Amino acid sequence: MKEIAVGVDIGGTYTKYGFVDKEGVVLAAGSIETTGHEDVEAYQVALKDAIEAKKNSLSENVEIVGVGIGAPNGNYYSGTIEQAPNLSWKGVVPFIELFKKHYDVPMALTNDANSAAIGEMLFGGAKGMKNFIVITLGTGLGSGIVVNGELVYGHDGFAGELGHVTIVRGGRQIPTGRRGSLEGYVSAPGICRTVFELMAEMIVDSEFRNIPYNKLTAKMVYEGALKGDPIAVEAFERTGKYLGEALSDTVMHLSPEAIFVFGGLASAGEFILNPTKKHMEDNLLPIFKNKVKILPSGLTETNAAVLGGSALVWQEIGR
Amino acid sequence: MKEIAVGVDIGGTYTKYGFVDKEGVVLAAGSIETTGHEDVEAYQVALKDAIEAKKNSLSENVEIVGVGIGAPNGNYYSGTIEQAPNLSWKGVVPFIELFKKHYDVPMALTNDANSAAIGEMLFGGAKGMKNFIVITLGTGLGSGIVVNGELVYGHDGFAGELGHVTIVRGGRQIPTGRRGSLEGYVSAPGICRTVFELMAEMIVDSEFRNIPYNKLTAKMVYEGALKGDPIAVEAFERTGKYLGEALSDTVMHLSPEAIFVFGGLASAGEFILNPTKKHMEDNLLPIFKNKVKILPSGLTETNAAVLGGSALVWQEIGR
Repeated sequence: MKEIAVGVDIGGTYTKYGFVDKEGVVLAAGSIETTGHEDVEAYQVALKDAIEAKKNSLSENVEIVGVGIGAPNGNYYSGTIEQAPNLSWKGVVPFIELFKKHYDVPMALTNDANSAAIGEMLFGGAKGMKNFIVITLGTGLGSGIVVNGELVYGHDGFAGELGHVTIVRGGRQIPTGRRGSLEGYVSAPGICRTVFELMAEMIVDSEFRNIPYNKLTAKMVYEGALKGDPIAVEAFERTGKYLGEALSDTVMHLSPEAIFVFGGLASAGEFILNPTKKHMEDNLLPIFKNKVKILPSGLTETNAAVLGGSALVWQEIGR
Repeated sequence: MKEIAVGVDIGGTYTKYGFVDKEGVVLAAGSIETTGHEDVEAYQVALKDAIEAKKNSLSENVEIVGVGIGAPNGNYYSGTIEQAPNLSWKGVVPFIELFKKHYDVPMALTNDANSAAIGEMLFGGAKGMKNFIVITLGTGLGSGIVVNGELVYGHDGFAGELGHVTIVRGGRQIPTGRRGSLEGYVSAPGICRTVFELMAEMIVDSEFRNIPYNKLTAKMVYEGALKGDPIAVEAFERTGKYLGEALSDTVMHLSPEAIFVFGGLASAGEFILNPTKKHMEDNLLPIFKNKVKILPSGLTETNAAVLGGSALVWQEIGR
């Protein structure tokens, strides 16, 4: 029987799951809707049923040796999901305690960016690195920090919320968190907001002047930049400036070997990575300059979520 | 024979050394001038001579089991002091390699704030804590970060430079580092600068309106605050605001159990700690609120430097 870890990634809309072996090969993967269930227990039954059906459809027999879960506001220490703003389960959900009714195997839970960092360490570009950071750029900005080869959970399990450091004091509002948080500038919605800010500020022509606020997506900004639209190009420059400035403070804290950038916005490649690198370097003390790599993630987007969750399991078992 | 570790703290003007046993008792201590020696090797001979003379003056026989050194820009990994702005030795000084000619015992070197953090963990207020931060407030702002019970040196040995995070973009100049660095606001010179900023800004009477810039000290600001001088009181409030805002970003990175504040400015007690706590809390995400303690250091200023250096030794030996 082949040993596999189940990686689970709980998103606001969909929950992805997959069977991953110790080498990081995804044998099978699937998803269920996160919403539409009566409560968390009904959701867990649906998740278990989906996992079992997928398991039975495999041509070879597998043994589930653990379940690793990435979830918003997931607390590694307690196995709970706490006040997650984009999930319908309110308060403190004892997710692992409840899911143990279905599988009597080791389980670990943390937030999605932390599990991405462990995935990067075991299966991605951070193999062999002891000090690095993963930034996930999507609807929000998440981060996972590794120090001395271990993920930093902090005293209460919630360390690594770089999306909520302040980059512009008294700046943009965001749905959750303080005004001026990094996430309001460096994320898919953040770059769209910057496009509108730039259209107000500059007088150059741009295709975006004909698009309403609610129709603009980060993908359109990327496509605009590829075509040389000056507002789109400047929006990436400014987004990278915000991120680079914030990361210089992070480097001053932690002096990592590399910072990996992952997620939808990161697929814009050098449009985002070059200004990030430049502005980070501009703000570093001399002893830190030209040492920290800014790299795209070594995981592909399609499998990263389940690899991250499963990496949690393999790391726990390997301790 | 009693086993002792020699703790050494290299400052710009004086070098302190002391003999510390495993329980953190300082058996003896002394100092030599850091400056006035032909080169680093002549300085080391003077330091060794002072240590030997002190050792011979003790009533009991002691065995030196190690030497731990706190020095500006001290690199833990290489045992070097690199481009320290306030020392006359330029470039990269192989301090441990050279000092091993005098003592063939385990040696460790790091910056003074890092050694203060290890001192706090072994002998001070952080006993038993696994995740905490020490901020040293003197001529500059130093910091030592402990995660999972280990000091964070980062990839290159220089992690923990919180004095150089940016708190006001494009703000005050400082002798070393970028404009707007935290150290330009939260340090002994920083609070003096804030007094002059406030005198320009406000119209209240203050004793400081009769004192020239070059005569003002942080101690005078503290004494003014004790007497209720409105500029002095507001200067502490504003200094705490800067520190609290910066620490909220640090908490978002690392989620520590406590932050210890140490050094001359910290002796102002609640004048500095209360606004720091308030503004840190104001800027935290809900999941971090009312969890992180802001505490005065558990080490007294007179012995902290040598305790820190010696703690480095006891920690290395204890591994």
